[in-house]
Amino acid sequence: MQQRLGKGKTVSPSKAKNFSGPQVILGIDPSLRGTGYGVINTATATPVTLSQGTIKCPADWSISRCFLEIANTLKTVIAETSPTVVAIEGLFYAQNVKTALVMGQARGAAITTVAKAELEVFEIAPRKVKQAIVGFGAAQKEAVAKMVQTRLALSELPAPDAADALAIALTFSQSASSPIPDPAIKPL
Amino acid sequence: MQQRLGKGKTVSPSKAKNFSGPQVILGIDPSLRGTGYGVINTATATPVTLSQGTIKCPADWSISRCFLEIANTLKTVIAETSPTVVAIEGLFYAQNVKTALVMGQARGAAITTVAKAELEVFEIAPRKVKQAIVGFGAAQKEAVAKMVQTRLALSELPAPDAADALAIALTFSQSASSPIPDPAIKPL
Repeated sequence: MQQRLGKGKTVSPSKAKNFSGPQVILGIDPSLRGTGYGVINTATATPVTLSQGTIKCPADWSISRCFLEIANTLKTVIAETSPTVVAIEGLFYAQNVKTALVMGQARGAAITTVAKAELEVFEIAPRKVKQAIVGFGAAQKEAVAKMVQTRLALSELPAPDAADALAIALTFSQSASSPIPDPAIKPL
Repeated sequence: MQQRLGKGKTVSPSKAKNFSGPQVILGIDPSLRGTGYGVINTATATPVTLSQGTIKCPADWSISRCFLEIANTLKTVIAETSPTVVAIEGLFYAQNVKTALVMGQARGAAITTVAKAELEVFEIAPRKVKQAIVGFGAAQKEAVAKMVQTRLALSELPAPDAADALAIALTFSQSASSPIPDPAIKPL
């Protein structure tokens, strides 16, 4: 990442990579009707879950209302948990162009919100997340949620979208502490 | 549009359609590297152009920096011109899924910004804009820009992306003053 967000500030590539220490990571799995989010603090061996949930936007809400809900909720979560970095589910090949446009819009709403908070954002390929958390890239959502519950010692199974977001945060944490840069994780 | 943006406010369908009088219309043609915008006041026979331009994001800027630039510029334009309604280029079928995802993201950044300003947003099919402004749906960008220049009595030919945005605003103005609802214009 050569350019940092905000008013003309820049970050050198070396500084941009410096996420190997303890972090507060906000993971986001964006979608129009159910954006998952999860914030973990990696200062302890078992990361502490600071916040998690799903931003639900019913089918009868206009898309602009949904984007507003996504933006406002993420803004509140950021204010309450003070993340040091953000990881978001990467683009994957949607079934068709129409789905891709809708998905892209929700992603744009989420990225704009974290960019406003001057946080660096990384995207992680969805396959990479499943590989890192469950051990293989084609894992089912249920398997991801169970593994997230175990890894974070949560008393309850997280809801599917929140679990995906927590899995994204955990995957970022694992990769950031590795000395080898991972091509499946890219700055946005 | 059954639901209005913002904190639980709602607008009845009849009120949502009430854009037939003079308006200050913000037209937006969103894209990652060159979002066009244009604001016109339709209180006079020849609408007055209050603001127009292109939000340029160089190829070496990260996408999150681009979204921030789009959001910040549109926020400033809204603060300076106080639009009463927003019209945005509708989704069209992009060449491929990857393009659609990128386009969708820029659109999400723009819609989120106008939604935060509690403005109603309408999308207009790109073909409709060309038909309304030039007279046929497959018009070239140059023809659109020239027609926009004439219709708005601009001393200079507007840049292509700004011209598209002004054309979107003009098209909305034309359709809003027609008693027959236009299926090519939809609330978002």
